[in-house]
Amino acid sequence: MLFGTHKIVNNQLTVGNVSYSEIGKKFKTPLYVYDQKLIEKCMKEYIEQFKSAMFKTKVLYASKAFSCLAMYELCNKHGLGVDVVSLGELYTALKAKTEPSKIYFHGNNKSIEGLTLAIESQIGCIVLDNEYELENIKKITKRLNKGINIMLRLNPGIDVHTHDYIQTANFTSKFGVSTYNDQKVFSLIKEIDREKLLIFKGVHCHIGSQIFAGNSFSKAAYTMLSFIKKINSETKIKVSELNLGGGFGIYYTEEDDPESTESIVQNLITNVEKYLTDNEIKIDSLVIEPGRSIVGNAGVSLYKIGAKKNTFGGKNYLFVNGGMSDNIRPALYQAKYECAVVNKMKAELEVRTIAGQCCESGDVLINNCQVAKSEIGDYLVVFSTGAYGYSMSSNYNRITKPGVVFVDDGKVKEVIKAQSLEDLIKNDILLGDNL
Amino acid sequence: MLFGTHKIVNNQLTVGNVSYSEIGKKFKTPLYVYDQKLIEKCMKEYIEQFKSAMFKTKVLYASKAFSCLAMYELCNKHGLGVDVVSLGELYTALKAKTEPSKIYFHGNNKSIEGLTLAIESQIGCIVLDNEYELENIKKITKRLNKGINIMLRLNPGIDVHTHDYIQTANFTSKFGVSTYNDQKVFSLIKEIDREKLLIFKGVHCHIGSQIFAGNSFSKAAYTMLSFIKKINSETKIKVSELNLGGGFGIYYTEEDDPESTESIVQNLITNVEKYLTDNEIKIDSLVIEPGRSIVGNAGVSLYKIGAKKNTFGGKNYLFVNGGMSDNIRPALYQAKYECAVVNKMKAELEVRTIAGQCCESGDVLINNCQVAKSEIGDYLVVFSTGAYGYSMSSNYNRITKPGVVFVDDGKVKEVIKAQSLEDLIKNDILLGDNL
Repeated sequence: MLFGTHKIVNNQLTVGNVSYSEIGKKFKTPLYVYDQKLIEKCMKEYIEQFKSAMFKTKVLYASKAFSCLAMYELCNKHGLGVDVVSLGELYTALKAKTEPSKIYFHGNNKSIEGLTLAIESQIGCIVLDNEYELENIKKITKRLNKGINIMLRLNPGIDVHTHDYIQTANFTSKFGVSTYNDQKVFSLIKEIDREKLLIFKGVHCHIGSQIFAGNSFSKAAYTMLSFIKKINSETKIKVSELNLGGGFGIYYTEEDDPESTESIVQNLITNVEKYLTDNEIKIDSLVIEPGRSIVGNAGVSLYKIGAKKNTFGGKNYLFVNGGMSDNIRPALYQAKYECAVVNKMKAELEVRTIAGQCCESGDVLINNCQVAKSEIGDYLVVFSTGAYGYSMSSNYNRITKPGVVFVDDGKVKEVIKAQSLEDLIKNDILLGDNL
Repeated sequence: MLFGTHKIVNNQLTVGNVSYSEIGKKFKTPLYVYDQKLIEKCMKEYIEQFKSAMFKTKVLYASKAFSCLAMYELCNKHGLGVDVVSLGELYTALKAKTEPSKIYFHGNNKSIEGLTLAIESQIGCIVLDNEYELENIKKITKRLNKGINIMLRLNPGIDVHTHDYIQTANFTSKFGVSTYNDQKVFSLIKEIDREKLLIFKGVHCHIGSQIFAGNSFSKAAYTMLSFIKKINSETKIKVSELNLGGGFGIYYTEEDDPESTESIVQNLITNVEKYLTDNEIKIDSLVIEPGRSIVGNAGVSLYKIGAKKNTFGGKNYLFVNGGMSDNIRPALYQAKYECAVVNKMKAELEVRTIAGQCCESGDVLINNCQVAKSEIGDYLVVFSTGAYGYSMSSNYNRITKPGVVFVDDGKVKEVIKAQSLEDLIKNDILLGDNL
């Protein structure tokens, strides 16, 4: 399936009116190529569709999906806030001049350095995970004599159908405090409320990733709202904000049938409004944190084909010049993708396994897919690698990390330079005489 | 189990006569800490034990297990050659002044840049994977007018008991040419032999990783030797070198029961000698490529404990300040490890799950292990992370990569500096007006 500005022009696949063959010739491959228009379209859709007359709404980009200066710049342009999960993401967002008040800081074990930078910079909110973190926040706010907004991450205990690794709200999840430990939740909220430098804003949950059933989010919203009602009556402390996290699924292959953003967020808004009305409770704002659904379909990995191999066992390969070092998801989550040979969009197809160059059998990007009969030197794209592709890339096999470009209206803009060989040894120190 | 120079002194775990608590206080954690003596001991063991009176022997360090300048320096010191699998590893080995003739270059899809640097630098051997690569090598050697030694990677079709991802010689493996396609092998060898600038040295195989049964290697040796006999009689071309790759298993947990290096390599030598004598064939040299078994047990990951959590579902966590960003193996291969709280080596134990700081449920280093009852701020080591730990580390969640130190005789030597926040955005380019 072709997303965004992708077009087929004379057998050639183009994005933003530039052919991938051209991009491949101009830049070092592998290369992550993003359709900037599609990123911006997804951002605008969330901002426009996620609106209510009853409460304010905020859309935060979950930047762990793909974090770089340029992504935060696009968030700033379109009025999205950002969700960061580490000192590194926070630092990068600030370097991209993201308004600190629009930054939410997540994580189950935030570093002192991260919390300190967050409080110093007066970010919008720290999403508190546990009581140890609260102690750290209390110390840092006192030392700096600066206040901070706090939300509490709750675990509503909701089972969703997705990969175990990315299901984040079951009873044994490492994240947040269980709503089933309600006394602990109440006492944490009271403690936050008592602290002069801390402002209790509300509660957060995140039920998992790559979720297709829109009603899972409404279910989470109901659970959280009924718990907010309980907090109200038990603590008399106002819960002004509900943050439902992200996890909106996207299309990778024919097996995936995600609901549209419009349908998901509008149903969510309708259901939240109905619950608030029916139960006579109020919130000031509702927050969501899409990541994958903003960048996933907008990015592809562009590779060059280096060899073919038909094995004795009957598996026939195409070898590309990247692999698990730039995209670990197939090996890590058994993630599935579609691909195309960009200069042979109408060629006859054959069954091939797309394997990478890493010295490891598990380095297979796509198993037994239909792909154009191709030649060595042809370029191949793996689609929808925009989320958790570059962001999980490594230097395994001491392979340099790929570069990243945004394509828009005929222009190809480099947003991350490919690593150089010098980059690989930049932090290495020779033992020398110290041998 | 404690390896190398590890000792328990007054409740404290030490390595190379330095306590981990001290190291943790002096360096930024997470940190990879290597016992230099143990690395060197493993290297010396291979060099001393892997010897024959009938043929030369070579030990190459499979540097993808852990590649950095300092590791190549240690190989140079102890007379090991090195096996590299990418331009990046080759570049790093050369920067560490590894004698080019001691470098072997592997990979199923080597880049033109990598092959060019290999031939320009006159490395010891290119281990040829396929006919497309041969075409590239022919072109480059002609352009540079420089010769090169070639081995051919064969797939002997041997099943071994290990994780699918690291089993490299089944019939559908992406590596090498199947010995069952014997005509193809013979014709490739003849083609190499015909080329003036190419010298055919021999054949290579690698049956997989983390293999415990020493007889698997002898089985591979037999299969390869009988195939060499076939090559001899079919092509009349001399096969002077047999390279059996690596894959020697190590201890991670009680479930693992590896044979000693001494026993494995001496059996292997005996079996190869016997086969050669019985079958009246000769080889000039036998090569092995240990990686994991040289660095695996010598390295640990040192973390600081940041929080504890008892979940409603009954899973009780310790949160450390690293995780899948510095060690992907538990999530990727379901790899198991042991750990210890370094300043509480004699404390009472309890069952905890060691989880990382990444925003992902799959970020668990060890599930339900026995670990000392500990306090926030204590340091914890995960043992035997020396191989495929640092080398597979990423910036997932935009977390900076850890540093690496070698400890030896009371000295702690930094061999890789931890990444800085500046490093994270070094290659990022702001869109700026180009928004």
